[in-house]
Amino acid sequence: MGALMEPSWGTSALSPPSVPMELHAQNREKLVQALRENLAASSRPIRGFVFLQGGEEQTRYCTDHTELFRQESYFAYLFGVREPGFYGAIDIASGQSLLFAPRLTPDYAVWLGEIKPLPYFKERYMVSKVFYVDEIMQVLTDHSRESEKPLLFLLYGLNTDSNNFSKPAVIEDMEKFDTDLSTLHPILTECRIFKSELELSLIQYANDVSSQAHIEVMRKTKPGMKEYQLESIFLHHVYMYGGCRHCSYTCICATGENSSVLHYGHAASPNDRILNDGDMALMDMGAEYHFYGSDITCSFPVNGKFTKDQTIIYNAVLKAHNAVICEMRPGVSWIDMHKLAEKNILESLQKESILVGNIADMMSKRLGATFLPHGLGHLLGIDTHDPGGYPKGTERPKEPGLRSLRTVRELKEGMVITVEPGCYFIDALLSPALEAPETSDFFNQKELVKYKNFGGVRIESDVYVTSTGCKNLTNCPRQTWEIEAVMAGAPWPLDSIFYQK
Amino acid sequence: MGALMEPSWGTSALSPPSVPMELHAQNREKLVQALRENLAASSRPIRGFVFLQGGEEQTRYCTDHTELFRQESYFAYLFGVREPGFYGAIDIASGQSLLFAPRLTPDYAVWLGEIKPLPYFKERYMVSKVFYVDEIMQVLTDHSRESEKPLLFLLYGLNTDSNNFSKPAVIEDMEKFDTDLSTLHPILTECRIFKSELELSLIQYANDVSSQAHIEVMRKTKPGMKEYQLESIFLHHVYMYGGCRHCSYTCICATGENSSVLHYGHAASPNDRILNDGDMALMDMGAEYHFYGSDITCSFPVNGKFTKDQTIIYNAVLKAHNAVICEMRPGVSWIDMHKLAEKNILESLQKESILVGNIADMMSKRLGATFLPHGLGHLLGIDTHDPGGYPKGTERPKEPGLRSLRTVRELKEGMVITVEPGCYFIDALLSPALEAPETSDFFNQKELVKYKNFGGVRIESDVYVTSTGCKNLTNCPRQTWEIEAVMAGAPWPLDSIFYQK
Repeated sequence: MGALMEPSWGTSALSPPSVPMELHAQNREKLVQALRENLAASSRPIRGFVFLQGGEEQTRYCTDHTELFRQESYFAYLFGVREPGFYGAIDIASGQSLLFAPRLTPDYAVWLGEIKPLPYFKERYMVSKVFYVDEIMQVLTDHSRESEKPLLFLLYGLNTDSNNFSKPAVIEDMEKFDTDLSTLHPILTECRIFKSELELSLIQYANDVSSQAHIEVMRKTKPGMKEYQLESIFLHHVYMYGGCRHCSYTCICATGENSSVLHYGHAASPNDRILNDGDMALMDMGAEYHFYGSDITCSFPVNGKFTKDQTIIYNAVLKAHNAVICEMRPGVSWIDMHKLAEKNILESLQKESILVGNIADMMSKRLGATFLPHGLGHLLGIDTHDPGGYPKGTERPKEPGLRSLRTVRELKEGMVITVEPGCYFIDALLSPALEAPETSDFFNQKELVKYKNFGGVRIESDVYVTSTGCKNLTNCPRQTWEIEAVMAGAPWPLDSIFYQK
Repeated sequence: MGALMEPSWGTSALSPPSVPMELHAQNREKLVQALRENLAASSRPIRGFVFLQGGEEQTRYCTDHTELFRQESYFAYLFGVREPGFYGAIDIASGQSLLFAPRLTPDYAVWLGEIKPLPYFKERYMVSKVFYVDEIMQVLTDHSRESEKPLLFLLYGLNTDSNNFSKPAVIEDMEKFDTDLSTLHPILTECRIFKSELELSLIQYANDVSSQAHIEVMRKTKPGMKEYQLESIFLHHVYMYGGCRHCSYTCICATGENSSVLHYGHAASPNDRILNDGDMALMDMGAEYHFYGSDITCSFPVNGKFTKDQTIIYNAVLKAHNAVICEMRPGVSWIDMHKLAEKNILESLQKESILVGNIADMMSKRLGATFLPHGLGHLLGIDTHDPGGYPKGTERPKEPGLRSLRTVRELKEGMVITVEPGCYFIDALLSPALEAPETSDFFNQKELVKYKNFGGVRIESDVYVTSTGCKNLTNCPRQTWEIEAVMAGAPWPLDSIFYQK
């Protein structure tokens, strides 16, 4: 591909890896093991099927416009199926896995492609058996070989980020089965939290591709461009060179004041501002590869040179980011990590005389939430906000800032979690804090006013918790001088000469 | 933006135009006029409101992953609103337009952006008045100033491409209104069919951007690439240089045999084949700008040089494409145009001895549908398959090929319709045709076998029907030698020297 358009940082060493379907076979084994233990512990018989319905292709409103299909995440975890319209079952006693494919009409071959025979899916997805969806009833009845109705463990439970409930699988003749709606969801969700090596390698790949794409964006950013052009550069890079057709979420390409809008970039705020010389940019973008995602934020000056004020805020956030990563290991409480990030940011603001007073007092008044209103980070995997942040027995904190945490868990080996401290100057939060008697004295208004239109800084990495500490999967320039060097054209990683300065 | 990555064909003369909201005001005026005429013709009083519900943001399954919002098309037509969660009403008697915006919580300002005051929407969308959604009941009651219940004309009707029904607006207290479910849909749909000058200029812009992006793709196509890389180049081009965040439909980037799969490119056939030297490529891709779309197909050899066989099939399709455009004018039947395309293709195949026998016989046996199984083209606008193809009183033909037509209307000034003849070698259609006694004798199997793995060719342009003929809005190289020149690096349009050969 010599004549192919090359990214400006040179040839990517990446090429989209083939995906071993053992990954999903392992996910199924892990679930079966966990279910058996659960059933045994409550003296229930080891019988029944895990039974899940895959996603369906959606049309837009009343039209025939079909949205690009992306598999439902729990189904993707267990079966890795990229096509819509499937069902899947796992026999808990035998561990056998069954896929049910939609029976396509002959017209499909003309309009949508070759009709794959069942053995194709058996081989591709490494399952024990494949049937058609219209055979589910018969197959499950035959397989259960019991006098009782077959027992189906269906997926029903709360997603604590959306407050939506998952929709249990539905087929005709559901009354011919016994169903259990409560057992599967917490156990399967818990399985998803701890990543296998194969899962981790996909998340690492998504991080590698996205890290490079972020650098490509930094390199090409110039005053006068539109924010969406940075989005376009990112999307193109991860697809063209990384094979990533989906991103984990809509790109947040915020510059200037927009960088204090935490979820900027959606249809009502569509990355359409023109970049001004002197703006900070906050780019929160991550690619997805075979369902597994990444979630990375880089903040940098659009003209490639940090001002003094930008350096102050950026370094406050970087210090928090690094302090958290230094502390992360199994057994550490995520709430403590959030507070550690807050404390670091408050200390930096105090050091620069933007805040005055005692840090412990600020912490007890929850002043950190004025500058960091979102949670420190979230579980990451097949969903950007991977489920399981609030398992049974945990409760969402009530305090500002802490109540935005997507998880309050203790860290354990195998988790992948984002570390994304930020420091924002948000009128809607600063105004009340400046007025409230319990916080107003903390502000040095003379200094604070300098940051009125600053926006905000966020630095976000994806971090894997190991047995003794953690590993940062993201590889972007983070020091101000690294960013300046890369934006000026230096290769990344920087040559060692940069580090001898 | 001198340092910005430039497309290889040089600087685009395009930049995203600002969109005059008069466009939607005109659309509303046109609807009100049509409704008044309809009511008067059936001696009904000129009263009531057109009442539409805009689209809502969707989350993916049970998660908080939000899909990038795209407004529902009828709502977009009348109001041009890009944000989710709106309602809109038009007072038929006065012509006044009312928008109802969702009342956002203070949290919105922190997470999603500035909460715009109502006057912002009034000015932006050029409507008479703006209220909150929770005021609908009160406002409509006040506005109707009648003793009776206010009358709402709701949108309910069949989309003849999807066979889905549009969902009428729903609010609480619906029982406090009289509702009419049958009048609005056919009238509003008919309005959408005839494009105003402002609408046409957006479709032209989407065509300009997409035509250039197609050329960019041709230039960069090389054997060894993956199909999705061509998709990525297209998407990047239309967004980066054209400001088009959405495309009209999922890109079809089919090469080799895949080019005979009419709707290739979806999740189960995800543009993931490697391009081989000697393949034909069929690229069906179109960008959307401010809701208005384009739909363009270019077919070309991936190595930049047509073989003899490729030239034969390509020119057969091009002759059909051009013959149709030559004939298009008000009063012409679209079924006749479809047959004209078929006839041209059959004649070409006969001339090359792939088919033998009498063309009229082939036509009467519907042999054309074996090579061109889809309809010749469809209405295009805010939807790729714009609605209204089968108004009341028309019926879908039963014959192969013809039954796939998305419209059977007579052409009229103001329509925009795609002209997209194709010639495909599809096993699932050729095998039965080779066996059927009424068609088997038409085939010269010795010649036909050469095309077994050919795939197919489609050439698609977007065409506006004028008062005396038509105008092709698409501007891509179409002659084989134009394509070869552009793929070899010549500028487009070609310098006049190319035409003196």
